[in-house]
Amino acid sequence: MLTSPPTGTGRRPGGLVELDRGACLRLLATTDIGRVVFSHHAMPAAHPVVFLLDGEEIVFRTCRGTTLAAATRNLVVGFQADHIDPVTRAGWSVLAIGESYEITEPRRLGALHEQLPPPWAPEHIDHVLSIPAQHVTGRRLG
Amino acid sequence: MLTSPPTGTGRRPGGLVELDRGACLRLLATTDIGRVVFSHHAMPAAHPVVFLLDGEEIVFRTCRGTTLAAATRNLVVGFQADHIDPVTRAGWSVLAIGESYEITEPRRLGALHEQLPPPWAPEHIDHVLSIPAQHVTGRRLG
Repeated sequence: MLTSPPTGTGRRPGGLVELDRGACLRLLATTDIGRVVFSHHAMPAAHPVVFLLDGEEIVFRTCRGTTLAAATRNLVVGFQADHIDPVTRAGWSVLAIGESYEITEPRRLGALHEQLPPPWAPEHIDHVLSIPAQHVTGRRLG
Repeated sequence: MLTSPPTGTGRRPGGLVELDRGACLRLLATTDIGRVVFSHHAMPAAHPVVFLLDGEEIVFRTCRGTTLAAATRNLVVGFQADHIDPVTRAGWSVLAIGESYEITEPRRLGALHEQLPPPWAPEHIDHVLSIPAQHVTGRRLG
């Protein structure tokens, strides 16, 4: 288990406002597209996924054999989501970090498949991974 | 210098379409918001930035003392941008990787400051960093 960050809300250099854990989780719940942040062949990588916030876990589907499936199971990975107005550039960004795992319990899987947003391709349904949001940081921008 | 990936365009498992380097760079030029992907205290991180594609380099401003400035100078880092329709979920995602460096040459800095999009906070102007897009991958989604 990763240690939690301080939960206070504070102003950062440059006027960006840090958000506490509760605010970050509430913002994550407002979207269903984010990016899994991981290492692949020792290089930084980030791939978009459609996801569901299940309690305090980020849940998404991957396809066996993909980079994402190989590089994110049972590893500490990041998950980033944001919403930034393209004109005013105001918005928010949240980064969650946790040790990912595959969800295999049939009852939970069944419930998740009913709730998960449609995947980009129908083949993307053979793994359901979770990133528990063990460490969460975020900020308001602009 | 990182080696370049194959430049072919191909279909991935799940029907995602891989894009070649030229297509990726053209897509990067259509936006000015992306995310720097890096490690911070050995943990995955991704922070949004407003950026300019200067030739084949991703250029953005940071503030001295920020995590981003500390964790991205003279290191191999990633840069991810995407555009995904929130309703249809169709879109694209591009990931560039390169060794970042600070731009200090006065004439180039002057020209960049005129072209760079406004930063989230006016204080965010004391460093201008570049990530040369040495390795670029991308895909169409949905």
